[in-house]
Amino acid sequence: MVEKKVSDYIADFLLEQGIRHVFGIVGAGNAQIFDAITRLGFTEIVCVHHEQAAVMAATTYYRMTGKVSVVLLTTGAGSTNGVTGVVSAWMDSMPVLVISGNENSRFTSAENPLRIWGVQGYDSTKMVEGVTKWTNRVMQPESVRDVISRAYAIASASRQGPVWIDVAMNIQAAPVSAEGLLPVQSLQLDDHHQVGVDHSRILDLNNGVRAVLELLAVSKRPVLWLGHGIRAAGAESLVAELVEKLGLPTLVSWQACDILDSDHPLCFGRAGVYGQRAANFVLQNSDSLICIGTRLAIPQVGYDLTEFARAAQVAMVDIDSQELLKLGERIQLPILSDAGKFIERLLQEIKGINTQPDWISQCEVYRERYPVVGPEHDDMQDASGTSFVNSYRFMQVLEKYFHDDQIVTTDMGTALLSGHQVLKIKIGQRMLTSTGLGEMGFGLPGAIGAAIGANREVLCLNCDGGMMLNLQELQTIVHHQLPIKIIIFNNDGYLMIKHTQKALFAGRYSGSDQKSGVTCPDFSKVAHAFGIPSFQIRTWEDAESILPEVQSINGPVICEVFTHPEQPFVPKLSLVQQKDGSIVSPPLEDLSPLIPRDDMRKNMLIGLHQKSNTLDVSNVD
Amino acid sequence: MVEKKVSDYIADFLLEQGIRHVFGIVGAGNAQIFDAITRLGFTEIVCVHHEQAAVMAATTYYRMTGKVSVVLLTTGAGSTNGVTGVVSAWMDSMPVLVISGNENSRFTSAENPLRIWGVQGYDSTKMVEGVTKWTNRVMQPESVRDVISRAYAIASASRQGPVWIDVAMNIQAAPVSAEGLLPVQSLQLDDHHQVGVDHSRILDLNNGVRAVLELLAVSKRPVLWLGHGIRAAGAESLVAELVEKLGLPTLVSWQACDILDSDHPLCFGRAGVYGQRAANFVLQNSDSLICIGTRLAIPQVGYDLTEFARAAQVAMVDIDSQELLKLGERIQLPILSDAGKFIERLLQEIKGINTQPDWISQCEVYRERYPVVGPEHDDMQDASGTSFVNSYRFMQVLEKYFHDDQIVTTDMGTALLSGHQVLKIKIGQRMLTSTGLGEMGFGLPGAIGAAIGANREVLCLNCDGGMMLNLQELQTIVHHQLPIKIIIFNNDGYLMIKHTQKALFAGRYSGSDQKSGVTCPDFSKVAHAFGIPSFQIRTWEDAESILPEVQSINGPVICEVFTHPEQPFVPKLSLVQQKDGSIVSPPLEDLSPLIPRDDMRKNMLIGLHQKSNTLDVSNVD
Repeated sequence: MVEKKVSDYIADFLLEQGIRHVFGIVGAGNAQIFDAITRLGFTEIVCVHHEQAAVMAATTYYRMTGKVSVVLLTTGAGSTNGVTGVVSAWMDSMPVLVISGNENSRFTSAENPLRIWGVQGYDSTKMVEGVTKWTNRVMQPESVRDVISRAYAIASASRQGPVWIDVAMNIQAAPVSAEGLLPVQSLQLDDHHQVGVDHSRILDLNNGVRAVLELLAVSKRPVLWLGHGIRAAGAESLVAELVEKLGLPTLVSWQACDILDSDHPLCFGRAGVYGQRAANFVLQNSDSLICIGTRLAIPQVGYDLTEFARAAQVAMVDIDSQELLKLGERIQLPILSDAGKFIERLLQEIKGINTQPDWISQCEVYRERYPVVGPEHDDMQDASGTSFVNSYRFMQVLEKYFHDDQIVTTDMGTALLSGHQVLKIKIGQRMLTSTGLGEMGFGLPGAIGAAIGANREVLCLNCDGGMMLNLQELQTIVHHQLPIKIIIFNNDGYLMIKHTQKALFAGRYSGSDQKSGVTCPDFSKVAHAFGIPSFQIRTWEDAESILPEVQSINGPVICEVFTHPEQPFVPKLSLVQQKDGSIVSPPLEDLSPLIPRDDMRKNMLIGLHQKSNTLDVSNVD
Repeated sequence: MVEKKVSDYIADFLLEQGIRHVFGIVGAGNAQIFDAITRLGFTEIVCVHHEQAAVMAATTYYRMTGKVSVVLLTTGAGSTNGVTGVVSAWMDSMPVLVISGNENSRFTSAENPLRIWGVQGYDSTKMVEGVTKWTNRVMQPESVRDVISRAYAIASASRQGPVWIDVAMNIQAAPVSAEGLLPVQSLQLDDHHQVGVDHSRILDLNNGVRAVLELLAVSKRPVLWLGHGIRAAGAESLVAELVEKLGLPTLVSWQACDILDSDHPLCFGRAGVYGQRAANFVLQNSDSLICIGTRLAIPQVGYDLTEFARAAQVAMVDIDSQELLKLGERIQLPILSDAGKFIERLLQEIKGINTQPDWISQCEVYRERYPVVGPEHDDMQDASGTSFVNSYRFMQVLEKYFHDDQIVTTDMGTALLSGHQVLKIKIGQRMLTSTGLGEMGFGLPGAIGAAIGANREVLCLNCDGGMMLNLQELQTIVHHQLPIKIIIFNNDGYLMIKHTQKALFAGRYSGSDQKSGVTCPDFSKVAHAFGIPSFQIRTWEDAESILPEVQSINGPVICEVFTHPEQPFVPKLSLVQQKDGSIVSPPLEDLSPLIPRDDMRKNMLIGLHQKSNTLDVSNVD
């Protein structure tokens, strides 16, 4: 009987699945697996410089290829370093298979009471139990194929998410004959997150489709809200047909902003706390809201559920019953279904379409009245009179130079907010970020995973603060000469935090800019150190001359854009003073900067919220 | 009643404890705490650029100041980013108090079944339960003083280690009157790691001291082995007296290599898998071995317990009974005691001293016969004839320029192994590293914590591979203009892994050097980008001219040392071929490169091990 090492079966599995790239860093704890994969010669291991980046890159690799992506971690810190990426994948429903090495299996028992397992190991799977769909430690060489097969299947199954398997060093090297391998156990895909759920309110696919059609039949101002769950279900190709057949004003979540052409006549944008003003009016005036594959996160629905789409009956289609129930009675129609199956079924069942031309016209009025870039995005000057380009307005210039198949990844802060507020995304273009964990540092590895997965150019929107958390990955980009264009918005520190501190602490900053204890390096010099060409944009003339050049370069580029260190993130749902001096959080449609109350009254077909009525808008009206 | 915010009580607590510095990054989840500390104005927050660095810096800050150090993490990724440092602190028994922010307390219940708590939170304390001494989530504003006081006390209590408390954003901001605060609960300092231990074999302090004295009275070749537990017990000032009064040949663990002057006549160095050859002969020929405050890790005792100090009765004094029992019957005298109390008591009880001049002379013979730098550390040339300085030999040049109060931190790989093999440390000098987790990237934040804690210069020994994992912290160093001299050994990738791959895979490299998929940047250019002066050492002439200059500069410096990309790490306990062709792991005294068998026979007073007898040393003898 021919025997192969456990590591060889892992390498074989990657080949069988057609996985062309995995991400990781070699160490004593995974050297066997690296060797087996390299010897087999099918899968390329992309060696990053911090394991967090390996996991983050795997999430965008998946998004571009549809392949569950694999991460190779070593024992000890090699695996702890992967935790941030795993939590990010968990929150964003990204199927990632993490394979960690560990010490000799005589140490890797959950009963081992020592602080250290072997030389530098610990119970890695226990640590991530709460933030993964499944963990397993391969303790028998014969079980390798079973465990990796199940892990892969569990990661891929709805609701997708990361899985983590741990393989002791000696097990990796252990020989097994093909005949000796244990059979792959059949899957029990019961999601522990469904346990303990009261399903009495939840509708199934049949009843859900019927209820939605009944709701739409009587709605005057229906709205569709689409999310990443549609892509996770592989149903993105049905979106245009769905939207057009229903004829409804449609909103998209940030994670799904590339699922419908931003210029589609029925696409009314992205609503939320940092939403587009027009989109929020569409949302908040709806009388029925059909949410498919979007988890209605707080940044989408705001802080007070009683104010969210308060005139609407809300239907929510999701594969995770916990998500369906989290907003309680606010979701009148919680429908437990795969987003794709729901859309297919809905398309089959739609008979006539109850078009509402007046409502669509009204939505178009919102869109025309409140373009995504407005006077609140005018350039600002600092005390010395230096003028800074506004990051929102900058996006409109940037998108002129987009390729038809442009991929964009964003880090957090200015990159995230300006990008998702302004950038129009066409079908064929992609915009990828971390919307759940929202970890600073996602931008660079996100771009790496996307560039390698799609084998094409990526525009990475980043910020001075966020660049630092995966700075070392510039070398990974350089090593592979990946065509990644990095735009760095330089705003002297952590701008979102500065705004928080300004609002909460009477303007006292701490740890958020140069004066309060944090600086970032000169990124043009950093670019030079890594051998990356670099540019600086300080004016609109710079932008118009440099951006085409940036887009025309093959290989990596860094382009720093200097923005005002206090530039507001607007529009935004902000705390506001009322006429009596008290501070309130207005309803989701009443974004700051506040608009005149008369305009609000005109826009709010459902009537002005009482809180909006009493806001102090003396600077506005 | 005057009310203060929960965050103010946290800031007050830091003041009461006299904590001058804490480490962290501000975020929405900890902004209240940052503000409270900054307003109070006593404690400085050192803002790093990745939370892993905050925790690592806290460990060396503690080592230099004796103050339990505090880390401030924000919600979400801010806290996952801290995990690697926490595991490192856990394994190395470093008291670190981690305070993480989290989402609004209405989300932060362990019963919350959603993948995301609030906007971007998760159950951070659950994740680190297995790698901390204690975790707690502050859910009642009134309990803040109680929880933080207990956390601090638990971290400080033996066996020291990290604790983690989580405070929801709204709780941080909640007002409480001093009168409303709950009293501090009395501590139940039962270490969960002692649970389930069979104490029948374990001796207490009284019996342990007596047993050790009885053992020493009949020993001919006694040896003392000292570890970090002595410093953790605050007993480092007793070490010289102990050694001299006992008159025993003394070994030190890596973590305690600065506890006894390396030039003390009774200091015989550092034994282990990567140990000094003379030290290993001392250890392996002992007939009694008294280990105090050292956990006898695998890198110290080797892979086969039956071969470790096999002629010796072994006494082990440790505060953690699990550690006492982990080597089973090999430890004849497991003594559960604080290392300091044990030493004090031993000093009181010692009557006459049973000096063994012949044994000490023999140990001196080992030391003279096997200096730490030998012919195995001669320079090597590459194929093109370029000669590289050897990193071990380099240490001997480097230490000539040490200040009397020199602090050294090391990263892993070449920095760790060459540094701990060669560098002599005087009393007043310190050498700090991560010996448990051994995480790449420790060097830079370790240097930051030490430089700030001691308020003086630090020499950071680093490598090209390890620099990358905390590269961003160069900016923290520059921001504070910390006097950190960074020596980077450039050996084209991960040299330890290359040696592993050479040994295991017939020389096939994967992901460990330029040709196999990993490169590092030009660190002189990186230095320039950060505005740090830089030097390059390629020859001994360079070393002699540049090192004094490096040491004379105020503020940060980077000095890159180019070493042979295949330089061996020797001496080392390595797998060796026997005469019959089979591969064995020799006993701990038989380090590679192998020495002639006649010399081995002369050195091994206890007789040559059978395995040593049959090794193929045809290239040697």
